[in-house]
Amino acid sequence: MKESSIDAQKIIRRKWDGELEYLPDELTIEEALEISVGGKTIATTMRTPGHDAELAAGFLFSEAIVRNRGEITHISASTDNRVDIGVKHDANVQLNSTKRFGTISSSCGLCGKTSIEAIRQNFPAIRATDLRIDIKTLLSLPEKLRNAQSDFAHTGGIHAAGIFDMSGKCHSVREDIGRHNAADKVIGHAFLNTQMPLDRYLLLVSGRASFEIMQKALAAGIPIIAAVSAPSSLAVSFARQSNQTLIAFLRPPTFNIYSHIERVIMEPV
Amino acid sequence: MKESSIDAQKIIRRKWDGELEYLPDELTIEEALEISVGGKTIATTMRTPGHDAELAAGFLFSEAIVRNRGEITHISASTDNRVDIGVKHDANVQLNSTKRFGTISSSCGLCGKTSIEAIRQNFPAIRATDLRIDIKTLLSLPEKLRNAQSDFAHTGGIHAAGIFDMSGKCHSVREDIGRHNAADKVIGHAFLNTQMPLDRYLLLVSGRASFEIMQKALAAGIPIIAAVSAPSSLAVSFARQSNQTLIAFLRPPTFNIYSHIERVIMEPV
Repeated sequence: MKESSIDAQKIIRRKWDGELEYLPDELTIEEALEISVGGKTIATTMRTPGHDAELAAGFLFSEAIVRNRGEITHISASTDNRVDIGVKHDANVQLNSTKRFGTISSSCGLCGKTSIEAIRQNFPAIRATDLRIDIKTLLSLPEKLRNAQSDFAHTGGIHAAGIFDMSGKCHSVREDIGRHNAADKVIGHAFLNTQMPLDRYLLLVSGRASFEIMQKALAAGIPIIAAVSAPSSLAVSFARQSNQTLIAFLRPPTFNIYSHIERVIMEPV
Repeated sequence: MKESSIDAQKIIRRKWDGELEYLPDELTIEEALEISVGGKTIATTMRTPGHDAELAAGFLFSEAIVRNRGEITHISASTDNRVDIGVKHDANVQLNSTKRFGTISSSCGLCGKTSIEAIRQNFPAIRATDLRIDIKTLLSLPEKLRNAQSDFAHTGGIHAAGIFDMSGKCHSVREDIGRHNAADKVIGHAFLNTQMPLDRYLLLVSGRASFEIMQKALAAGIPIIAAVSAPSSLAVSFARQSNQTLIAFLRPPTFNIYSHIERVIMEPV
């Protein structure tokens, strides 16, 4: 095939046999979203459109900008990639420290928070709980997460986050090109439905467990976090300190437990 | 095994046969790094320690804060997770728009840039070039990238970025828990060695190709970008507009080409 004969706007695939074929232009959508509070833009994110109100609410909640559903007076998600959230005038909205906005992220690299001290949100550690999950249920979750995702998810271009109860029942699943956004969406969903804290639930993420994923889970009071891929050193130390159970490399029938194994019932399946 | 007999500070692995074993505590290190210019902190990143000066320089360069090596008077990378970069007083350092700092990222989610308009850096598109890569060389790159990584990289907890020439020779490879950081490190390495623009080179990333990866590559003048995983929609449209060749799902012997196929010599291997 001559290069000059190929339409530059198409996707070309080189197959196993070396032959070329055209592919449909099926890509994970990445678009910017502006989040504002009372008309004032506080953050911009690259996200996969959909569930924007949940994303914005989850972000505000996990950043401790709003902590109670009643503080929110309205959420306007427009078609031009903007979400505005109205808050009560007397609400304890900490908008003065705008430097803090912007989510610190190991995936991202460089963010708007301008001091290391400002990173840790200081949510209280998870309290002692009788919450337990058995191995059989735990091992069933990755397939449930995949089944709840769109078909396209299997191409690997999109992350998922899911909230599950201890019987393995799915509370909610959301997808996004950014794994932190996917977590914000499921947390925002619960927050908007006044289901906080999620202290009887587990958060499963399709990618890695970073410091920030742990922090968002802690903001929502989630005691058990599971990740399909690797955890970071800071995620592990954070989980140990905040009394969170961290499971990673959850690839049935195997997994690793990095902290607080007491919440996993280690009986044979 | 009784749960009470397990040390909560160890990593427990459930093996394929259902038995448990202890693992060494080998984790990808994630720590915060503060980047300052002339003593003023402009960004904080969660990164894997190592090559911090390159990371900071690459960030400043790809954010267009400094564009010439001669503008930098000193770089002090301290052991307390801080890098300070000194710049000439008369240098065109755009520190007044601090809102712009913080790298927008689809992996990250929410960042410090507070308007959508501020995201696009407006680097000029890649100029017409005779640069070409043949398929055999292209297919050899993922293995070269892996071989240049640490053994630990194979656990999947760390990203890599590599700069290669058209003969497949490796210019530099850097690793980081954040894929954008890995890109900043290889770009910063070249910038500090006054090798800009990298207009005869290819950038290979071990993960996905996001909008921001494309933007960093464009800042460095790199005409060809290859990713082992998926590209986003915005990465593809950005590549088409900026005259960059974007190859993704580079998993020998297969790959996809999303833009400007004219730089790939499509002869049989």
